[in-house]
Amino acid sequence: MPLVRISLLRGKADGRKAGEAVFRAMLDTLNVPPKDNFQIITEHAPGALVYDPEYLDIARGDGFIAIQITLNEGRSVEMKKAFFRRVAENLQRELDVRPQDVLVSLVEVKKENWSFGNGIAQYAA
Amino acid sequence: MPLVRISLLRGKADGRKAGEAVFRAMLDTLNVPPKDNFQIITEHAPGALVYDPEYLDIARGDGFIAIQITLNEGRSVEMKKAFFRRVAENLQRELDVRPQDVLVSLVEVKKENWSFGNGIAQYAA
Amino acid sequence: MPLVRISLLRGKADGRKAGEAVFRAMLDTLNVPPKDNFQIITEHAPGALVYDPEYLDIARGDGFIAIQITLNEGRSVEMKKAFFRRVAENLQRELDVRPQDVLVSLVEVKKENWSFGNGIAQYAA
Repeated sequence: MPLVRISLLRGKADGRKAGEAVFRAMLDTLNVPPKDNFQIITEHAPGALVYDPEYLDIARGDGFIAIQITLNEGRSVEMKKAFFRRVAENLQRELDVRPQDVLVSLVEVKKENWSFGNGIAQYAA
Repeated sequence: MPLVRISLLRGKADGRKAGEAVFRAMLDTLNVPPKDNFQIITEHAPGALVYDPEYLDIARGDGFIAIQITLNEGRSVEMKKAFFRRVAENLQRELDVRPQDVLVSLVEVKKENWSFGNGIAQYAA
Repeated sequence: MPLVRISLLRGKADGRKAGEAVFRAMLDTLNVPPKDNFQIITEHAPGALVYDPEYLDIARGDGFIAIQITLNEGRSVEMKKAFFRRVAENLQRELDVRPQDVLVSLVEVKKENWSFGNGIAQYAA
């Protein structure tokens, strides 16, 4: 059920591979079901993806990636923390993305708010 | 008030017409006011719009469309179900989109969270 | 913490400058911390950014800008109203954007739903 939007600068990390790293982190920490993988990956020109280079004393650079995920409500704070940690680890290990450059934003919704095809609300009670 | 984001693969369905089909479904099932039509339609290269080809045993293909709609909270589950059904029907009838290829995600917000112009929160109490 | 998505028509207002105007309005009215500036700015071809030219009797034109902001919950209605007003004022004064053309949508989330780098949930309790 998560819908993942990944935004990165053109010519930097491979967006598709970044998406795979994000999906694996979701499987491992957020109880996302296997195959529940839906993503929109966009590359941006410099200036169209804006990040502050030092907010919260984190030194960001042009490897910056913004990951926004819409998912069902109900995950605990601990699960979210584990997810943030895992995403940063995966991206660093697999794509050499610096952990400083990984912004994650979660948007929680109700289970009934999804249709995965065939015009049906598969998760509604 | 809904803000609709439609993402589809380049060269597949006509995004603008898809948006019209989505808007008509909102009018017919979600009590959206006439003319309340605001959409952002993006086309993506293969690999930049990721979908699982069989999650929940639904056979998705490259006609895949992701529709994410921000709208006011308060619609019933029945209204949402009717909307999902109608969107898939409209897209199939008017654009030959396969119902298997239609993913819908709703994000609900408070009425006071919108300005439709002139710097005013038109829906706030 | 806000993540700002700005969508406008290609060749119209300067998206980067629009983003700066939006950020300043957030600083001035929404208690957003200095440097907390993260934005995704996209330009669209005519037909890919859809707006109704008269919904709520507001005459919109091709200077239309859609601004969607994900931010922490808890701002008052008065703060939101002040923000809408200020954004429209800033965009008009600095970029000649007509107030009629400014749509704003806020999406509120929990504080624990963000990581600003290093795999940490900086705002979680």
